[in-house]
Amino acid sequence: MDEFSALSSEALQGLREELRKEYARFRERGLKLDLTRGKPSAEQLDFSNELLELPGAGEYRAADGTDCRNYGGLHGLAELREIFSPLLQVPAAQLLVGDNSSLSLMHDTVMHAMLFPLPGGSTRWVDVERPAFLCPVPGYDRHFSICEKFGIEMIPVEPTESGQLDIDEIERLAASDARIKGLWFVPKYSNPTGSTVSVRQAERLAAMTAAADDFRIFWDDAYSVHHLTDHHVIVAPIVELCEQAGQPDRVFVFGSTSKVTFAGAGVSFLGSSPANLQWYLGHIAKRTIGPDKVNQLRHARFLKDAEGVQKLMERHRDNLAPKFAKVQDILAEELGDTGIAGWTEAFGGYFVSLDVLDGTAAEVIRLAKEAGVALTPAGSTYPYGKDPRDRNIRLAPSFPPVADVDTAMRGVVLCVKLAAVQKLLEG
Amino acid sequence: MDEFSALSSEALQGLREELRKEYARFRERGLKLDLTRGKPSAEQLDFSNELLELPGAGEYRAADGTDCRNYGGLHGLAELREIFSPLLQVPAAQLLVGDNSSLSLMHDTVMHAMLFPLPGGSTRWVDVERPAFLCPVPGYDRHFSICEKFGIEMIPVEPTESGQLDIDEIERLAASDARIKGLWFVPKYSNPTGSTVSVRQAERLAAMTAAADDFRIFWDDAYSVHHLTDHHVIVAPIVELCEQAGQPDRVFVFGSTSKVTFAGAGVSFLGSSPANLQWYLGHIAKRTIGPDKVNQLRHARFLKDAEGVQKLMERHRDNLAPKFAKVQDILAEELGDTGIAGWTEAFGGYFVSLDVLDGTAAEVIRLAKEAGVALTPAGSTYPYGKDPRDRNIRLAPSFPPVADVDTAMRGVVLCVKLAAVQKLLEG
Repeated sequence: MDEFSALSSEALQGLREELRKEYARFRERGLKLDLTRGKPSAEQLDFSNELLELPGAGEYRAADGTDCRNYGGLHGLAELREIFSPLLQVPAAQLLVGDNSSLSLMHDTVMHAMLFPLPGGSTRWVDVERPAFLCPVPGYDRHFSICEKFGIEMIPVEPTESGQLDIDEIERLAASDARIKGLWFVPKYSNPTGSTVSVRQAERLAAMTAAADDFRIFWDDAYSVHHLTDHHVIVAPIVELCEQAGQPDRVFVFGSTSKVTFAGAGVSFLGSSPANLQWYLGHIAKRTIGPDKVNQLRHARFLKDAEGVQKLMERHRDNLAPKFAKVQDILAEELGDTGIAGWTEAFGGYFVSLDVLDGTAAEVIRLAKEAGVALTPAGSTYPYGKDPRDRNIRLAPSFPPVADVDTAMRGVVLCVKLAAVQKLLEG
Repeated sequence: MDEFSALSSEALQGLREELRKEYARFRERGLKLDLTRGKPSAEQLDFSNELLELPGAGEYRAADGTDCRNYGGLHGLAELREIFSPLLQVPAAQLLVGDNSSLSLMHDTVMHAMLFPLPGGSTRWVDVERPAFLCPVPGYDRHFSICEKFGIEMIPVEPTESGQLDIDEIERLAASDARIKGLWFVPKYSNPTGSTVSVRQAERLAAMTAAADDFRIFWDDAYSVHHLTDHHVIVAPIVELCEQAGQPDRVFVFGSTSKVTFAGAGVSFLGSSPANLQWYLGHIAKRTIGPDKVNQLRHARFLKDAEGVQKLMERHRDNLAPKFAKVQDILAEELGDTGIAGWTEAFGGYFVSLDVLDGTAAEVIRLAKEAGVALTPAGSTYPYGKDPRDRNIRLAPSFPPVADVDTAMRGVVLCVKLAAVQKLLEG
């Protein structure tokens, strides 16, 4: 297939007819497929089914003798902190174990910062006129929802022309305006582009000057062990870098086992400086007498050690890699030489970021929906749901079986082409 | 023993010598006993040990087919809401299941009200000058900690002369001042007095006029099924009463299985009007993709139905009743005719509220601590930890074995007497 932009009007009209017929046939199949969320499949959840019987009869004592059934232990089980310390690159003593959702830890950190000054800060954010966060785009919609909820303005930071993180712009903005309080950041296999921060970039984030005395990086290490290839990308140890840069309180690190064990019944982690952790623990001590330690024990027994986590992740990779390969193959085969789309290929994570012809993403998503293929809503990878070029679509192939990924992607590329031809004929 | 106040100075001095010697002997035993918290004992936790192996191999589907391992289900499992609906007297559709702590649900409700107007309300509490809560005293320290955390002023409401809830005063205060936003209330077997609200009182709370358009009762039904006798006290269905009184949004009901199954790994409940529940769900939807449904399934399978909960509570009662009887016996035997103390005897719950001679509670607690018996800190049953008469002590005999309760109580009554004699000699 030729580049669409090189086609004459007649050729485009002919192509449109052809695509419309193909689309009508696809729609007639009455499919119901879903590529919306980074949700593990039932097969992946099966890998951790041992948890359904753990910790097991009479087993309720942590390594230090704690009766996990009773109240207490705000910090989380030591043995579980030990397992995840090397994976999240946070000293075990500076790691807190939470319940089933790292999103909750992020939300509660922001919510507390709204009402209580952070270490080093002099004002609670609720008293700041128009507090703001930097949001590299495309990014994760649930991060953006937290800002929107609390009325924190989101300042999108577009990638550079070569598609890299625009670290210069982040430095410039952070230094220029004291109302900029934070940066949402997925350091590894990011949602949705799959990109990973370089050591040099991480060093700059750790060392940069921020106008706000309470500026924080929300380092969401959601995919720390979620490799899709043999190339296990390594990320800079941000807590250590911040400490070395003399800004120990700059970062909150988040992680979870939502895509390691059970998405809805895992454990979560918050890692930070001693001062930040003390701030957080002090506030949540009024909220709870402790997390679910039995579930923490269950996880410690099941995962055993960091190596145990890595081994489990191999199984996830074996399951996921063919789905991601399928997405890549179909994109390359169907859109490779059309000039109407670009996409990412990641070493890990849960997403493929697809850029379609400017001004057609919403239409692609609409067409796909009509044909029974659910995609993440248009704009959701941008703050306020507003993709300025209306071109980014997040593809999440983890949940459906590979045959369904195939079918769904056939539909997606068809919609991408149809929307592009329509657009080109309009223009 | 005579009433202490009837004793001559000489007699008191003689008694003081005797008590001092007895105290010195007690102290020499080097005990380490704890009556501080309403914490279930290991024996009680054993009653639910089945949970350590549940839901069991291959068991992860809720009654409606939901895969509990995956994301979702913010409202909580329907079958678990059905089990607790009759016990908490809230329609299942208006009941939400949370994670292991009802304290978290209370905290998050208050914290969200700080930042987002409640249904019917026009202002977020953070914008109210000196928002306040009514706090019947003596009460629960963790309720008070939440208010203190958020700078919500606490207005203590003392019982009437006959020791009853001063409902007239609550009505008067709620109607008089729009900055009064809430009432902390333990309706049944309350912490610490063991008292239960009457139907007539509940009706008045539901129907009373409040100056604030967003006044809420935080109805902490922590001990709904926690009987200590055959007399199972029944509490008025407050959600229904509020609805009937035309004030459906007046109440948030809280409950948990912390003292039913595992204190640290149970499930919690929030019940309220449809509007309140929608408000809450809307806000926590940005916080989490759902609670730990596997633990909810575990609980549904273990408890089976409301009757299953009641049966389990019989076992708790059999375990706890002898400990409470021991406390009552020793108090009666040692302090019964001294005129220096009064205490409660409840039909359920976890506490005995002991009033000692005015101005001696802190001293009793200090003496007990020195002798190795830990009691809840002085004043903790009052807002800001300030017991104006310095006389209330909360006794929590659930955790230690009955022999230790005996020993600890022998120490407590000794300290009560010694502090009283000292006080009387000073006065």
